[in-house]
Amino acid sequence: MSEISTKPPSGMRDFLAADVMRRRHVLAVVQRVYESFGFVPLETPTIENLSTLLGKYGPEGDQLLYRILHRRERLQRALASGSPSELELSDEGLRYDLTVPLARVVANYRTLPAYYKRYAIQPVWRADRPAKGRFREFYQCDVDITGTTSLLADAEVAGAVAKVLLELGFADFQIHVNHRELLRAFVTAAGLAAEQEAPALIALDKLDKIGRDGVLQELVQKGFAAEGPAGPHLVFDPTLARGLSYYTGPIFEISCQGLSGSMGGGGRYDNLIGMFQKQPIPAVGFSLGLERVLLVMEERGMFPPLGIGPQVLLCRMADVPAAAAIKVATQLRAQGLRVELFADDKAMGKQLGYADTIGAPFAAILGTSELAAGTVALKDLKAGTQVALPVADVGVFVMKRS
Amino acid sequence: MSEISTKPPSGMRDFLAADVMRRRHVLAVVQRVYESFGFVPLETPTIENLSTLLGKYGPEGDQLLYRILHRRERLQRALASGSPSELELSDEGLRYDLTVPLARVVANYRTLPAYYKRYAIQPVWRADRPAKGRFREFYQCDVDITGTTSLLADAEVAGAVAKVLLELGFADFQIHVNHRELLRAFVTAAGLAAEQEAPALIALDKLDKIGRDGVLQELVQKGFAAEGPAGPHLVFDPTLARGLSYYTGPIFEISCQGLSGSMGGGGRYDNLIGMFQKQPIPAVGFSLGLERVLLVMEERGMFPPLGIGPQVLLCRMADVPAAAAIKVATQLRAQGLRVELFADDKAMGKQLGYADTIGAPFAAILGTSELAAGTVALKDLKAGTQVALPVADVGVFVMKRS
Repeated sequence: MSEISTKPPSGMRDFLAADVMRRRHVLAVVQRVYESFGFVPLETPTIENLSTLLGKYGPEGDQLLYRILHRRERLQRALASGSPSELELSDEGLRYDLTVPLARVVANYRTLPAYYKRYAIQPVWRADRPAKGRFREFYQCDVDITGTTSLLADAEVAGAVAKVLLELGFADFQIHVNHRELLRAFVTAAGLAAEQEAPALIALDKLDKIGRDGVLQELVQKGFAAEGPAGPHLVFDPTLARGLSYYTGPIFEISCQGLSGSMGGGGRYDNLIGMFQKQPIPAVGFSLGLERVLLVMEERGMFPPLGIGPQVLLCRMADVPAAAAIKVATQLRAQGLRVELFADDKAMGKQLGYADTIGAPFAAILGTSELAAGTVALKDLKAGTQVALPVADVGVFVMKRS
Repeated sequence: MSEISTKPPSGMRDFLAADVMRRRHVLAVVQRVYESFGFVPLETPTIENLSTLLGKYGPEGDQLLYRILHRRERLQRALASGSPSELELSDEGLRYDLTVPLARVVANYRTLPAYYKRYAIQPVWRADRPAKGRFREFYQCDVDITGTTSLLADAEVAGAVAKVLLELGFADFQIHVNHRELLRAFVTAAGLAAEQEAPALIALDKLDKIGRDGVLQELVQKGFAAEGPAGPHLVFDPTLARGLSYYTGPIFEISCQGLSGSMGGGGRYDNLIGMFQKQPIPAVGFSLGLERVLLVMEERGMFPPLGIGPQVLLCRMADVPAAAAIKVATQLRAQGLRVELFADDKAMGKQLGYADTIGAPFAAILGTSELAAGTVALKDLKAGTQVALPVADVGVFVMKRS
């Protein structure tokens, strides 16, 4: 069977331990910040009915949908019909974004609150041509507020995303904002007082006279973008035109130095969430692209130490019973340590070599004399030092040094 | 468009906030315990090549695979050929379990450690007939150790799963064990000394004379299942026959009072992980079924308070500027609170009614006098009491009472 490829399919990725931990670090921040803004989580199935998905993303989007092939009788029936269409071969597909499932959920569960503030962190699938940084399976981190046209809601979704980036350690991102009603959202989102709306509008009105830089300069002079957590990161960008046919109000997009393309975007879309119902439902949302955020963080080395893999490899001398080693491992784990127990009967040198291979910072050696004394010989594999320690003291010792 | 169903597809589920939080509670314990045993995470793509999946689950499994329909030219070509086979219409499918992807990963990344202890927590898809408690998209939580035939590894995977169940609050689960080499694993996994293997084997040998109960009674008398964290939960079960063609050593299955069927299972399978390579790779693993675990925990009310939704709804009097309300919300969130800011301009009664709807325990009312004083009127919505509090003191107050 050696001719079978063991690579993941085109445009898809395996995430080994370090990848998973980095993704998890970012998602934990996203989750915590979104929840601090009062958003609640939603998870929808990977597979949706094609009747839900088709026609929502334009003809090009329909082409990029992953469709599920019918099985058994339904497949036979479709094939027997001569030249079946795509629709006769499939009636389910993979999630293409997190917005259409939100619209379906809002229509399906009438007990949801009038203002449904939900976040979703899930993968989506698009059969796009793979390229550097463009994948066919990738995560989106969405926040949306349905049921209100208030600009406060627009400010909240932008504020939540800005707070995520700040907590992750980004200092230089900018949220580009545009709209004919831009300034009202700007004033609100920047955390400025309502009475500053008039001077800001006056400044913006000079756009065709003094140009973009002139307007920005005047806005800064008048104190905009000077207060509030997201304030200094908001930029008025009259060139931003993010699928305006879809959006009905303010639109946002996040840029970051050195990254071509955006780390995410969003805006107000008052005609979409009601698509499965009779009445329109106003909504505003912001989607953060996990893969782009990770890309920049990796390039810049923005990850804290992430605690990947065992902290201690417990090595057993050949004459120590396995059951005794399990007992010591259990005691070490009860101290909060991540402990791997070396399973095979091998020479101590091989066991310590393995500890190096997996990057464990410590090896705890258990021989019969240690067992009798209730100790281990704890080896610091970076420092090369070794110390005899009561089993009960290993946790504190290791935590202090890793 | 009202005729379009807004339900999820057959056998699939939407998880609203409370569902997500319950699932997350369990998965956090699984993750923490698996890591404490030295396992590292792996995530593989939802979609695998059919060449990876086909033939690994038997003819019935092949029938249950979700297959991805070809697109554009490839689909046209297949259809133009007359009566295309399933294989001409599709060469990708959805993950069916977590074991075959593990085998592919072990073959693909030759830099993995000699003993690859990985855990995986991901959904799998099977086009099975949906039934009560049986879904087409469901999560598995797997731990596996590859590269060793040591019974210590078997004991470790069983020990990890037992520890998860103990941490979740299960007291009455039993891990059924069977194998012709059963007793050696039993002795090891029960945390007993090696010298107890002989009496245990003698007891087991009497199976056809004194029957199962007699053997169990004798094992208990001789002190088996009396020590070690998993000890009291291990049961020798000579009737357990968990797909023995697949397994090559000890096999496990978890039962729990009142649950028909198992919460998970596993065993040693030394001929599977090497399937994509030239040499065999021994392995042992255990898979916990998240959906079953959740089912029992919900029936028994085993969940702690899970902190779902905002703790405080910040209500704004009509004459308070939006920007001032955002500022107070930001201050409250900085205290670690989950805070929803009421976005619309509505009467205070409506705002408080909404706080009840979403189950927020507190409402913080912000009027112009509170704004001037740097306070909020904090309403305990369960107790019906109200107190004026400096904004800076709300966090501690709320945390104490929720």
